[in-house]
Amino acid sequence: MDQKTFDIGLEIRKSVLGAEFVEKSFASADDFNRPMQELTTEYCWGAVWGRDTLDRKTRSLLNLAMISALNRPHELKMHVKGALKNGVSKDEIREVFLQVAIYCGIPAGVDSFRIAREAFADIDAGN
Amino acid sequence: MDQKTFDIGLEIRKSVLGAEFVEKSFASADDFNRPMQELTTEYCWGAVWGRDTLDRKTRSLLNLAMISALNRPHELKMHVKGALKNGVSKDEIREVFLQVAIYCGIPAGVDSFRIAREAFADIDAGN
Amino acid sequence: MDQKTFDIGLEIRKSVLGAEFVEKSFASADDFNRPMQELTTEYCWGAVWGRDTLDRKTRSLLNLAMISALNRPHELKMHVKGALKNGVSKDEIREVFLQVAIYCGIPAGVDSFRIAREAFADIDAGN
Amino acid sequence: MDQKTFDIGLEIRKSVLGAEFVEKSFASADDFNRPMQELTTEYCWGAVWGRDTLDRKTRSLLNLAMISALNRPHELKMHVKGALKNGVSKDEIREVFLQVAIYCGIPAGVDSFRIAREAFADIDAGN
Amino acid sequence: MDQKTFDIGLEIRKSVLGAEFVEKSFASADDFNRPMQELTTEYCWGAVWGRDTLDRKTRSLLNLAMISALNRPHELKMHVKGALKNGVSKDEIREVFLQVAIYCGIPAGVDSFRIAREAFADIDAGN
Amino acid sequence: MDQKTFDIGLEIRKSVLGAEFVEKSFASADDFNRPMQELTTEYCWGAVWGRDTLDRKTRSLLNLAMISALNRPHELKMHVKGALKNGVSKDEIREVFLQVAIYCGIPAGVDSFRIAREAFADIDAGN
Repeated sequence: MDQKTFDIGLEIRKSVLGAEFVEKSFASADDFNRPMQELTTEYCWGAVWGRDTLDRKTRSLLNLAMISALNRPHELKMHVKGALKNGVSKDEIREVFLQVAIYCGIPAGVDSFRIAREAFADIDAGN
Repeated sequence: MDQKTFDIGLEIRKSVLGAEFVEKSFASADDFNRPMQELTTEYCWGAVWGRDTLDRKTRSLLNLAMISALNRPHELKMHVKGALKNGVSKDEIREVFLQVAIYCGIPAGVDSFRIAREAFADIDAGN
Repeated sequence: MDQKTFDIGLEIRKSVLGAEFVEKSFASADDFNRPMQELTTEYCWGAVWGRDTLDRKTRSLLNLAMISALNRPHELKMHVKGALKNGVSKDEIREVFLQVAIYCGIPAGVDSFRIAREAFADIDAGN
Repeated sequence: MDQKTFDIGLEIRKSVLGAEFVEKSFASADDFNRPMQELTTEYCWGAVWGRDTLDRKTRSLLNLAMISALNRPHELKMHVKGALKNGVSKDEIREVFLQVAIYCGIPAGVDSFRIAREAFADIDAGN
Repeated sequence: MDQKTFDIGLEIRKSVLGAEFVEKSFASADDFNRPMQELTTEYCWGAVWGRDTLDRKTRSLLNLAMISALNRPHELKMHVKGALKNGVSKDEIREVFLQVAIYCGIPAGVDSFRIAREAFADIDAGN
Repeated sequence: MDQKTFDIGLEIRKSVLGAEFVEKSFASADDFNRPMQELTTEYCWGAVWGRDTLDRKTRSLLNLAMISALNRPHELKMHVKGALKNGVSKDEIREVFLQVAIYCGIPAGVDSFRIAREAFADIDAGN
């Protein structure tokens, strides 16, 4: 592990997904999934999100499109919330998901709109 | 068909993919694929690309990520070229595809990097 | 928007998915997802379902196969119910999903059979 | 192996894909891929295509939709040719692929239209 | 149907997924899904799992990787439990899913780790 | 970058894919794709392939299954060759791809068998 990359990743991950959520993920990790927590933090959040060239808002927009295409609802919901933290507006999320509907198909678009509304409802409810 | 949306779509499509390419696509269309040409121009390029809120550069970035995830090499190559026309730099394309490698997996990333290099070579060769 | 295509789409969508469901979808729409409701109605239900050549029963059969392959359970359940409205029998649904099991793999087939049984149970329960 | 199911499968496979093609596939098979040839013939073409309820034309329509969604160009081209043998018209293939464009996304539709045109050109050239 | 292949498949399926589960699946089957139960048992569990060359533990490892890639959570959970029965250790499951995270992308890895933990919790709770 | 993980990754990558191929990949890399070469070497080949618990032969078997499911022919061909280097026999490759045919569908199986035969032919031709 590269400690510096891990530390950068941990900071970004907390900033995007919420410090409390990330701390809870590490606290509840056991020998089974701790290596996955560490790999994700270093490799995904440090080695890639930590690069310059694209800002965090743009990376969030890309993730909304990609994770819709990949059909991963749990991760998509989390990244809708993260996108709002990174300065993506609801209007921009709508535009991404209309583009998803055209390029990935209507069912992908419908699913992403539903998940976004669930994420918004969570936030309104203080979750 | 909504003529106005179609016309907006045709202008954007020509601007992103090249007027010559688009005109050739329509000229070579027959009864079999003309409805697909029209549907794509009106809905994809008019009804979605024609919306404001996200600019063309951002829509190109989203497409690079999504079409990588969707695993469609022909379309990806075309949209790499289109992205350059829309002001996306090679450095930014690299960043999108590193993010693809993390979220869609290493084989998706490797394929997208190879296709991008083919697109760059086409352009350098004047194609 | 092409009003005529939208109107044809709205009629077909209501006929396949149920007028009450569609009216509720529009009534509960907000600025965030109304453009998606409109795009789906015009583009999917009007511009494509509204074409002749293939009848609605055949389009339902195609959707059962495609949406199984696309792995979109919410949409699949809705289209199982829609297929029954379009004259597809339970025996025909079974045949489509056996073909799904062979071409998309056993896990896809198992998921589609389970979802179909949930759809049938909903209908039997008056939902 | 159930010989009866295998024999039904072999007859249907030859009828849809061409006797010459199927015989060549078996003749060129070695210990490595013969079990795949046999599995496909017995289960795919015998145990599923050999069932009644859906006729061959309908099964071809389903395959065009599913294999487009699955993104398998070699198989799709073969099944475009098979669909024509099973009585699917070019107009009907166009309709299936417009529906693919809506439900699986524009890039899937574009790819399927291109592959269909390659299949038609092969046939016109006597291949 | 080949009775011998079916019988081998039934024995293996019971051994991997649990006799009680399989018997309940057949007992609750109706005319709609019985053909799917039979196809799966003969074709998947008999004609493929019944082959030698690869032992059951290796086949379980392959399934964990493939079903993660295919994004089928219900089937994955069942095969995590089956893998443990076939002698795959929790440490080995972790290694497969780290490899999934790299090759299929981080969201696929995250989903598979979560599903594995649900499977372990089910087992600890006696389910 | 963690130099130790990178070095382990480079050694494993060369051992599996061939030293000449890997050296050529780095030699031909430019500013555009060098970061992808480095990311792949460190994280994929170092941080994951470099872990114990699963041996290289097992990791190759998993990759054959996963990359078939992911539908990435270039990468699959390379990993068929790598699998042979890691001690996987042709008979074992056949078994993996029969299991692919069942779980990912017949078209996936057919494609993987064809690609494997191309890989074998390359090797026989000294490539």
